[in-house]
Formats: sequence, structure tokens, C-alpha cells
Amino acid sequence: MLQKANSVNNALEKAVILRNPLKIHESMRYSLLAGGKRVRPMLCIAACELAGGQESTAMPAACAVEMIHTMSLIHDDLPCMDNDDLRRGHPTNHKVFGEDVAVLAGDALLAFAFEHLAAATKGVSPERIVRAVFELAKCIGTEGLVAGQVVDLYSEGLTEVGLEHLEFIHVHKTAALLEASVVMGAILGGADDEDVEKMRKFARCIGLLFQVVDDILDVTKSSQELGKTAGKDLVADKTTYPKLLGIEKSRELAEKLNREAQEQLLGFDSVKAAPLVALANYIAYRDN
Amino acid sequence: MLQKANSVNNALEKAVILRNPLKIHESMRYSLLAGGKRVRPMLCIAACELAGGQESTAMPAACAVEMIHTMSLIHDDLPCMDNDDLRRGHPTNHKVFGEDVAVLAGDALLAFAFEHLAAATKGVSPERIVRAVFELAKCIGTEGLVAGQVVDLYSEGLTEVGLEHLEFIHVHKTAALLEASVVMGAILGGADDEDVEKMRKFARCIGLLFQVVDDILDVTKSSQELGKTAGKDLVADKTTYPKLLGIEKSRELAEKLNREAQEQLLGFDSVKAAPLVALANYIAYRDN
Repeated sequence: MLQKANSVNNALEKAVILRNPLKIHESMRYSLLAGGKRVRPMLCIAACELAGGQESTAMPAACAVEMIHTMSLIHDDLPCMDNDDLRRGHPTNHKVFGEDVAVLAGDALLAFAFEHLAAATKGVSPERIVRAVFELAKCIGTEGLVAGQVVDLYSEGLTEVGLEHLEFIHVHKTAALLEASVVMGAILGGADDEDVEKMRKFARCIGLLFQVVDDILDVTKSSQELGKTAGKDLVADKTTYPKLLGIEKSRELAEKLNREAQEQLLGFDSVKAAPLVALANYIAYRDN
Repeated sequence: MLQKANSVNNALEKAVILRNPLKIHESMRYSLLAGGKRVRPMLCIAACELAGGQESTAMPAACAVEMIHTMSLIHDDLPCMDNDDLRRGHPTNHKVFGEDVAVLAGDALLAFAFEHLAAATKGVSPERIVRAVFELAKCIGTEGLVAGQVVDLYSEGLTEVGLEHLEFIHVHKTAALLEASVVMGAILGGADDEDVEKMRKFARCIGLLFQVVDDILDVTKSSQELGKTAGKDLVADKTTYPKLLGIEKSRELAEKLNREAQEQLLGFDSVKAAPLVALANYIAYRDN
């Protein structure tokens, strides 16, 4: 898995090179190459390989989902949104480059994800590339990241936030991009419609799982271990799974989601499905 | 031309309907449906028709370029950028919906442009749709809108801004999206590579023309006539064509660009090319 993450890092490094205008590329690279876990790109590649494709076939799409993830972190950290100073243990983008450049770096990463997907994907029919463009675009806007963030922003301090409301936020804010990562990989790898939909269900489960585990970690780990401000969900009076269900029931929910996710993969060759299973377990049992 | 603009308005109205989450869709629609001149969509449709395609073929792409244009206006107006309170005679998006929603509405429009282009374009080979996605994406990022805005932001107050520097800003900030509008129309309409490149040259000329005329209008018209704060380029100490060349030489430059643009269309059927010629003349001789 470390090897895959290194391949992704190399590909990202080459996709967004330092060139003129320097400041905006420095800003994009600062956040894009800050050493994330690359979970989304690895999901994209693993899904492509499960569908019978090569790592290289999925690599532009894998880079694209990481660009979108980075864009959403940069914009969510802005003073007018979550107003975060730290991200992965480093000052946030706007703290280093200013708010104006941070907004533009996010915009440029958003657009470049589509440019890279359209220009660099090789050996796949254009029809499948158009479907991948559609999946990526859909997970960003008002049926994905943006919907989750806007509902999240307007939920802080609300007294009555139920499980359904919390799930809406996370399905959109986290699960949608994980779903696009897996589904794009499946489509570009040549999966038929039935297999694409199985992988979509797998991705939806691990998307929610990802956030349940994030919430648990926020309560149980220190800031230093997480590389970001721990306990900030409680400080901001945000609704989380541990707050709604308690830690134990949250852990049970995580187990259930991981089980449901892996059930979707039973119809596939178990050797080929192993990387996706490993990623699901990593998401379930990670400690940061 | 008014009829085309109405078709575009209807299509935009249907593309971004009011639905949940309400606030973000209200914000997107507020700026998207605020009654712009729809020059970019009309260029896209006219180029498609010149290449032999139908209006309906280019309409999703035409809507997409207007979504991108609107996104760039919303983000450029933000307090951390140009800090504008008025746009087309109305309060800017962040003044009405808040900065957080304005950033997200821009992001959502950016993503939705690609979703709409990929999902709604009919009767065109997927290979041409992928090329259109590439052209649209390229004109937004660090070779287009973002590059122009970042260089513009860091030019204010500079004492030595020459013609070359000014042209860099406008080629990226204005001409790039006009180029994408025309080129996407040409590609989707079925133009061969040679004709696509002729229309690209046409678009580059009218893109620069657009900005030269904008600068002239900013000096010669009142705020009420323009629907935005006039003379603000001078107040902000921005370099403009009239400031560098004087009004008369700026007008001559505009004439020259319009002539060069129209020369690119000489090889086409003059009846079919008439709408693009009319749009070039509109850009050259408009009074707001």
C-alpha cells in the first residue's frame, strides 16, 4: 500500500509542476503534496485493478480525486468557513499564501482535475472518460461536497441534530468523493454496469465508515497524534457519532459498515478484491 | 440575438433548478440568472452553427461557459479579492448570502459546468465531448481565469506595468473563456482541426477586444449606465489600455482587433459566419 501511495505522490508531483505564475502553483503544490494518506487515489486504482484495468489507466483519475479532496480542504479551512489554522500539522493554505490565493488555488485544482482526467487518461474509450467526468463532477457540487459543507456550516450550534441529518452531512461531505473515486476506477477499468453498482455500494459504506472513525478518533486521540486540532468538534459544538450514540455504539456502527462494505465484494475474485478489502480495513482500524 | 439570449436564459433556468439544499441553489441562481449579456453562450452556439451543428447541440456547453463566467465573478467579487459590493446593478453574491455560501456557490457552479456538459450534450461523439471538457477546464485554471486574476491581484499599485503585462492579464482573465466558448462550439458542431484553429484565432482577438472596450467604457461612461462602479480601475490604480495608450490609441487598437478577428472568418460561408461577425461587432461597439 505504501508503494501505491508513492506512485500517486510521484504522479501528483509531475501533474502539477512549478511554473509561472509561481505563487499560485506554489500554493497548489503546498497543499497537494503535503503528504496526505492518499486513500482516495488508492481506492480509485484498486477499483480499476479489480475491474481488470492497469494502475496507469486509473492514475490520472486517481490524481484528479486527490486534487478535488485538496481543493475542498483548502476552501473549507478558509476564515469564512471553518477558519482552521492547522492542517496535517502545518499552517493552512490561506495562512501561508493569503485568502485570495487560497481561493484561487482551490479553483485551479478543481478545474485541473478535469483537465488532467480528460487529457492524461490513456487506453480507455472516450465514452468511459465522459462517464468518469460526470461521476467526478457530481460528487463535488450540490449533490456532494458542497451540499455537505453548506448543511454542516448551518448546523453548528443547532440543538436538534439527529442521526439522519448527521448522515446527510457525511454522505455528502465525505462519502460522495470516496464513491466517485471507486466508481471512476471501476468505469475506467472496464467494469460492466452491475459491477460498477456493486463497487458503488461498497464505496458508500466505507465513505460513512470513514467519517464514523474520524469522529471516534477526534474524541479518543490527542492533537499531536492526529496532526490537527483534536476535540475541535466538541469545542465547535458539532454533532458527531460519539455525541449522538456514545463511543461503544459508534464502534459497533463502524464494524457494521465495514462488514456491509466487504459483503459487496463477495461476488468478485477474492485475490483481486484483496486491495479494496485491505483499504476498507485500513479505514476501519487506522489510528489517525 | 435577443432570441438566442432568451434560449440561453431558459436553458440556464432549467439546468439549475431550485431544490435542496435551498440556500446554495438560491445563491447559484441569484448570480447565474441575474441577466448578463450571455455573450459567451451566444459565441458558443454561433460557432457550433458555423461548424454545421444545431443550437441544441451546443446548448449544454453554452450553459457551462456561463456557469464558469458566473463562478469567476462571484469569487472575484469576494472581500479577499476585488471586494466589490455591486455587480450588474445588484448587491454581489457574498453581500446577500455571506462569504461562505458565495465561495461554495462558485465551487458548485464550477463543478456543475462539467456535470452538465458531460450529461446533457446529445448527438456528439464522446471523443468530441472529452475534447470540449479539456478546453473548458484549461481556460479556468493556471493557464486561464485563475492565472489572470492572480497576476491582476498582484499588479495593483505596481508602478511599471507595461502593455505585455496588461495583455497577459486580459488574455487569461477574459480571452481564455471566450476562446473556450468558441472552440467548444466548433468542436461540438463537428468542425475539422483547421476550422477549429481558425475560430480559436478569431476568439483570441475578440477576447482582447472585449477587454480593451471594457477599459474604454470604464473611463467614458457613468456608473449608472454601466450598472457597476465606473472609474474604479483608476481609483484602484489599475493599469488599463486608456491609461497606457490614451483613449484614441485604445480605440484604434479595438478597431484593429475586430478587423483581425473577422479576417479569420473569411474562409467560411459568409451567411453562416454572419452571427459570429455580428457578435464581434457587438463586442466592439457596445455601450455597456
